[in-house]
Amino acid sequence: MSRHELERQLERDRQRVEGYLQMRLSQEESVPPLLSEAMQYAVLSGGKRIRPFLVLESCRAVGGRETEALPAAAAVELIHSYSLVHDDLPAIDNDEFRRGRPTCHKVFGEAIAILCGDALQALAFEILSTDLIRQGVSTERALDCVRELARAAGPTALVGGQVLDLLGEKREGGERNEAAVRAIHEGKTAALIRACCRMGGIIGGAAPSLLAHLGNYGYWLGLAFQIQDDLLDITGDPEKLGKTARKDMAQKKLTYPSILGLEGARQRAEEACTRALEALRPLGEKGVLLAALAQFVIERQQ
Amino acid sequence: MSRHELERQLERDRQRVEGYLQMRLSQEESVPPLLSEAMQYAVLSGGKRIRPFLVLESCRAVGGRETEALPAAAAVELIHSYSLVHDDLPAIDNDEFRRGRPTCHKVFGEAIAILCGDALQALAFEILSTDLIRQGVSTERALDCVRELARAAGPTALVGGQVLDLLGEKREGGERNEAAVRAIHEGKTAALIRACCRMGGIIGGAAPSLLAHLGNYGYWLGLAFQIQDDLLDITGDPEKLGKTARKDMAQKKLTYPSILGLEGARQRAEEACTRALEALRPLGEKGVLLAALAQFVIERQQ
Repeated sequence: MSRHELERQLERDRQRVEGYLQMRLSQEESVPPLLSEAMQYAVLSGGKRIRPFLVLESCRAVGGRETEALPAAAAVELIHSYSLVHDDLPAIDNDEFRRGRPTCHKVFGEAIAILCGDALQALAFEILSTDLIRQGVSTERALDCVRELARAAGPTALVGGQVLDLLGEKREGGERNEAAVRAIHEGKTAALIRACCRMGGIIGGAAPSLLAHLGNYGYWLGLAFQIQDDLLDITGDPEKLGKTARKDMAQKKLTYPSILGLEGARQRAEEACTRALEALRPLGEKGVLLAALAQFVIERQQ
Repeated sequence: MSRHELERQLERDRQRVEGYLQMRLSQEESVPPLLSEAMQYAVLSGGKRIRPFLVLESCRAVGGRETEALPAAAAVELIHSYSLVHDDLPAIDNDEFRRGRPTCHKVFGEAIAILCGDALQALAFEILSTDLIRQGVSTERALDCVRELARAAGPTALVGGQVLDLLGEKREGGERNEAAVRAIHEGKTAALIRACCRMGGIIGGAAPSLLAHLGNYGYWLGLAFQIQDDLLDITGDPEKLGKTARKDMAQKKLTYPSILGLEGARQRAEEACTRALEALRPLGEKGVLLAALAQFVIERQQ
């Protein structure tokens, strides 16, 4: 039942966020057309939009108004999209396909892809500082959102995780153990998903203790999500994934299955899911869709 | 007299901002060491720090406290530094030297250079949203600064200008005329320098009309600065410049001298300087160092 409801809500939120992103990515006449085209290509590419859903649902779960959270949902998707564009570059992961289409640099060239990512990151912060206020969010809460997103996107989190991932691949990063792979996944995935939940909570006016619970949920959900991603790289169907499979192994990436084996990694994903569900308890019935998402994340096949 | 005073103030501010940047770039233990090293290399490279000076001096000129403006001065230098790291990449300008040293990607490789730039941009917004408040700036003013910097760093300004520059070079951007080169310089340089002056004014509590004057000053100063940069590429001493000279011509870049000749470009730089000085009039004596900087910018030989 809640699974069906989750799917309906994911779809409604996806449409709402894509409409907002589409509007925001095409409204500025002074953006060079080629850059604007690259930004739209990178962002409007049919992802599941789980991060925006988490912002909106966390806001709703604490009794906030989803319209107020919409700019934060869009901003986090811009950060996620920019990080994919840069990760796919030849100098980093060298990926040619993403979500079933050629990657940004394959279509627009490396220079535009680098600049497109840079512009998406800046636009995320412009949207937080401008649009949230326009939707009626207080200055205080808007600035709290800037702080959450900037920290999650920065050198201690998103970018730091990407660097650890690169070094792990080249075996220059020291130990190949569970702590090392967890540090990568925390940075690359869990920190931003945690920030989604906290931003939704902040905009919805959650008390600090509830915010901490939402943050913990996001952290464990993010970890479960990334471990499942590692598993799908090995067991998934490339056509469903829309990207090159078995790349992690080919690149000798540091992943949960590479350290713990398939069964060990599955166990860790389930443990993370359990921790995510525990963190939701204080929300009671309000957390039902967030809980359904945690289940969905470890059962997904794409 | 004011020239001597300007040089003393530039040097004092340079030291203060570099101390702040040094502290901010080394305080986080959870940044991967290689990333931290690359960020410090990119930022602590002995530039003139004109942008931070403009933030601090604009704040002082409207009667604000410079300690409050220090985080904004650091943030704008992080944005400037990240943009240089990315512009120097092989896929963009392919520069091997910057400020007399090998560029970031020559030392750390392309992947780390891309990620280093990404991290510096995120850190700029983290500093605005965290450190300004810590220094006693109001939430309202801090959020205004986020908005100024995000807009100046985004697709309508800094990144847009870089894209136009790339397209101009490849002669894919349509017309090669003065309007086209001005659009490049507005985006690449003038927008960020304008934002410096406005952020300093915001933090210092300037009224909207004064803020507009400071913004105009910054715009024209930025334009003068970039035209002078075009000129120095042709007439400058490579050793003093610390970077490869005659590169614009070799790359067939769209510059003021390429459109108007050396004399025409010099005239435009002087006109821009005059407009900058005019914008300062409402500040009276308080604007003396900003005025001296405008003079300095068009007389500089490096």
